[in-house]
Amino acid sequence: MVDLNADLGEGYGTWTLGDDAAMLAVVTSANIACGFHAGDPATLLRTCREAVATNVRIGAQVGYHDLVGFGRRFVDVTAEDLTADVIYQIGALDGLARAAGGRVSYVKPHGALYNTIVRHEAQAQAVVDAVTAYDASLPVLGLPGSEFLRRAETAGLRAVPEAFADRAYTPEGTLVSRREPGAVLHDVDEVARRVLQLVTDRTVTAVDGSEVVVDAASVCLHGDTPAAVDMALAVRELLQRHGIEPAPFA
Amino acid sequence: MVDLNADLGEGYGTWTLGDDAAMLAVVTSANIACGFHAGDPATLLRTCREAVATNVRIGAQVGYHDLVGFGRRFVDVTAEDLTADVIYQIGALDGLARAAGGRVSYVKPHGALYNTIVRHEAQAQAVVDAVTAYDASLPVLGLPGSEFLRRAETAGLRAVPEAFADRAYTPEGTLVSRREPGAVLHDVDEVARRVLQLVTDRTVTAVDGSEVVVDAASVCLHGDTPAAVDMALAVRELLQRHGIEPAPFA
Amino acid sequence: MVDLNADLGEGYGTWTLGDDAAMLAVVTSANIACGFHAGDPATLLRTCREAVATNVRIGAQVGYHDLVGFGRRFVDVTAEDLTADVIYQIGALDGLARAAGGRVSYVKPHGALYNTIVRHEAQAQAVVDAVTAYDASLPVLGLPGSEFLRRAETAGLRAVPEAFADRAYTPEGTLVSRREPGAVLHDVDEVARRVLQLVTDRTVTAVDGSEVVVDAASVCLHGDTPAAVDMALAVRELLQRHGIEPAPFA
Amino acid sequence: MVDLNADLGEGYGTWTLGDDAAMLAVVTSANIACGFHAGDPATLLRTCREAVATNVRIGAQVGYHDLVGFGRRFVDVTAEDLTADVIYQIGALDGLARAAGGRVSYVKPHGALYNTIVRHEAQAQAVVDAVTAYDASLPVLGLPGSEFLRRAETAGLRAVPEAFADRAYTPEGTLVSRREPGAVLHDVDEVARRVLQLVTDRTVTAVDGSEVVVDAASVCLHGDTPAAVDMALAVRELLQRHGIEPAPFA
Repeated sequence: MVDLNADLGEGYGTWTLGDDAAMLAVVTSANIACGFHAGDPATLLRTCREAVATNVRIGAQVGYHDLVGFGRRFVDVTAEDLTADVIYQIGALDGLARAAGGRVSYVKPHGALYNTIVRHEAQAQAVVDAVTAYDASLPVLGLPGSEFLRRAETAGLRAVPEAFADRAYTPEGTLVSRREPGAVLHDVDEVARRVLQLVTDRTVTAVDGSEVVVDAASVCLHGDTPAAVDMALAVRELLQRHGIEPAPFA
Repeated sequence: MVDLNADLGEGYGTWTLGDDAAMLAVVTSANIACGFHAGDPATLLRTCREAVATNVRIGAQVGYHDLVGFGRRFVDVTAEDLTADVIYQIGALDGLARAAGGRVSYVKPHGALYNTIVRHEAQAQAVVDAVTAYDASLPVLGLPGSEFLRRAETAGLRAVPEAFADRAYTPEGTLVSRREPGAVLHDVDEVARRVLQLVTDRTVTAVDGSEVVVDAASVCLHGDTPAAVDMALAVRELLQRHGIEPAPFA
Repeated sequence: MVDLNADLGEGYGTWTLGDDAAMLAVVTSANIACGFHAGDPATLLRTCREAVATNVRIGAQVGYHDLVGFGRRFVDVTAEDLTADVIYQIGALDGLARAAGGRVSYVKPHGALYNTIVRHEAQAQAVVDAVTAYDASLPVLGLPGSEFLRRAETAGLRAVPEAFADRAYTPEGTLVSRREPGAVLHDVDEVARRVLQLVTDRTVTAVDGSEVVVDAASVCLHGDTPAAVDMALAVRELLQRHGIEPAPFA
Repeated sequence: MVDLNADLGEGYGTWTLGDDAAMLAVVTSANIACGFHAGDPATLLRTCREAVATNVRIGAQVGYHDLVGFGRRFVDVTAEDLTADVIYQIGALDGLARAAGGRVSYVKPHGALYNTIVRHEAQAQAVVDAVTAYDASLPVLGLPGSEFLRRAETAGLRAVPEAFADRAYTPEGTLVSRREPGAVLHDVDEVARRVLQLVTDRTVTAVDGSEVVVDAASVCLHGDTPAAVDMALAVRELLQRHGIEPAPFA
């Protein structure tokens, strides 16, 4: 069993992004935007309703307060401000989720915040503090070995490590930097096979050909382009052909 | 007994507005901004903590999405969007309130939204729908006789009518329009006496000298200027000298 | 000769809208967003550069300060604020246009502002005042017979009336309301023929079959969907087959 | 002769900051906000009008796109985006300045952007590129010895170094970090005397008692608190008592 997650609800007013309906047929966990990097309330409410209708779990995809940068730029926000920002976002999405008949069931940081708290201690702790203050029973998704997951565990939160379907890995089991050639994989079949191996063997073939252990309770898929949706569908279908039914992480 | 309410948490980042600490010593219910017309998350979290510390009830002061206009300009938002906007705001503030050890205990629309839904049927219903969807046990504050309170009651919400300490009333018991001379009262002692009369007799002296019945479970005070804070203090003191201890509406 | 105009630069950060490159091959005047309803600075700078490269005139498409509503919702902004908002937007786009080797050459209000100032006197005058204060030599595009164009002329601005390629007209020469069936035309060939007739005869066939005079110096095309781009191309091609080369209004 | 500059126009809608009228009686150059860290268009237009009326030169105080952080937080914006952001801001303020009968006469980065481009090469160049693209005759204000001023000079811009009235200096002539005790001076008379010495001797007394040369064509004053206004007034008065009439930098 494996959880499949993807980012949803990332439009803003007139602007749309990705094919949420298609992705809801693939994933078991939806990282729904919370309005700070994307997602106006009406879009978010519709997305929550669709997630509830398709029985997909709702997660709060919290990010920096930066619409124009789509949360992809580091912002040197203080820990105090970041904690409040994250509580605000979780609460807002949880309100919409409840109005849709669901609940926020986990938290996953987005974009530059996700990457920053792999190492940035103060911001990592600020996000942990926010989740703890809001609801200490909410699991958090993050990069295996990150400062964020380490501090989440220390704080008593359930820390869920995730793998990336379309990213190359180093022999140490970390992601190849996007600045390196080959960091992102585009071959649909290859990606599907890698996810299958990851789920069945808990290993991934690194860029040097070696097999490294990657312990992930969830796999992140992308859905913001037609090609990405095709890849997500291929992953799910290959898993199912091998008798693995995607299901929310425990 | 009477409830005293005022707007709080209306700063934004570096910018401050009003003397929240002073007002928390006066009021029993704090209409705390929710980020759409004012109130960044860190300010709101601090305000929620102060409200909890001073045992003042927290209400969600929801408004139009219009920071630069401070929510004081009518926006022709659709009912669908407005409902989602209001759920988002209540949820966000409720998250911060819970992190502070409290809860959102009622909802009061702000500024142009407050005034619009005195008559605007679609927007009034949209706000009612939002509160109902979020938590149907939350009371709503509004103008006596407004479309908003009428629809709130029809929907099964607790509709709490409020009076205004510093506003002149017509012989029909409605507010004198701000465009008329004398619509806003500035004499501290007069305002305090009027509130006392309102609480003890359920009447107010209208602009023509007649006494009209105004049935209000809460009285709205202002606190955004030093003079307004003085007035609020005077109201509370006069009530207490007459043995009336302000308390949250039932 | 006729001017063809369309809205461009209406993305925001990650979000895109319409096929600007395709439309720049069709139109002679580009109504480029100014950041208030759409258009982050980097998108606007690129759009200005492309307009300069394709020799398409740049106009400032000014709107309400309402990103989430895409400027399509009436905002009850004061005349004083609206004048400042419009000057700010024209200046910002003009700065980017100059950095791209061009200049803002006209002003066209967008969305709800466009529609509002057909009749709203204070807001119409506020926009006129803004253009006059920024550069009284800039023409303004608007609806024939509108309060906006009337006041623009009174103020000494060049008022340019425009027609709409894909809208039905009443026998009085006004637009059929979008709330009526048949208000928007979808047949590509029919729309192209209507524009040809409009340009050659200065008439349009109204919904009752009568021919009405529509005096327009520019025709507005849409480009925000693939179908809209096809329609725009068809209009331009039919005009050219009849020896009419689109050119900026004088 | 010396130029005195201060930040103005830093309110936003309902929120005000500082006493602009008082500061316009002190300074010769007004760094007026441009809407990205502070300053709604109506506030900016009023401030431009007051600057023109009091014969104070208008500068564009450009910053990060971060209202809630007041531009005081580093944002990892790309050079391409930053260049467009800065052009947009200069153009917007220049439009308002022209509507007020003035012009933007120089550019001074604000807050975290100011501090970042002391060393950050890509962002420093991005700001230089923006000014060059907008109007290469505009001087730029910055920290002596900064990457920003160095690149501005290389690009052919007039680079104007400034000193800070209320900051302690190291023996090397750089600012003592705000994290150190004594970094900010609060004694009004001491600050005034230091500015006098700076203007007459081109030196400042460093924290170790030594005299260091500080070559500054402008002195930055603060005006966001009553105490800051008093200090600014004291500086101007002491200069004038010594026959030094503040005047815009050449």
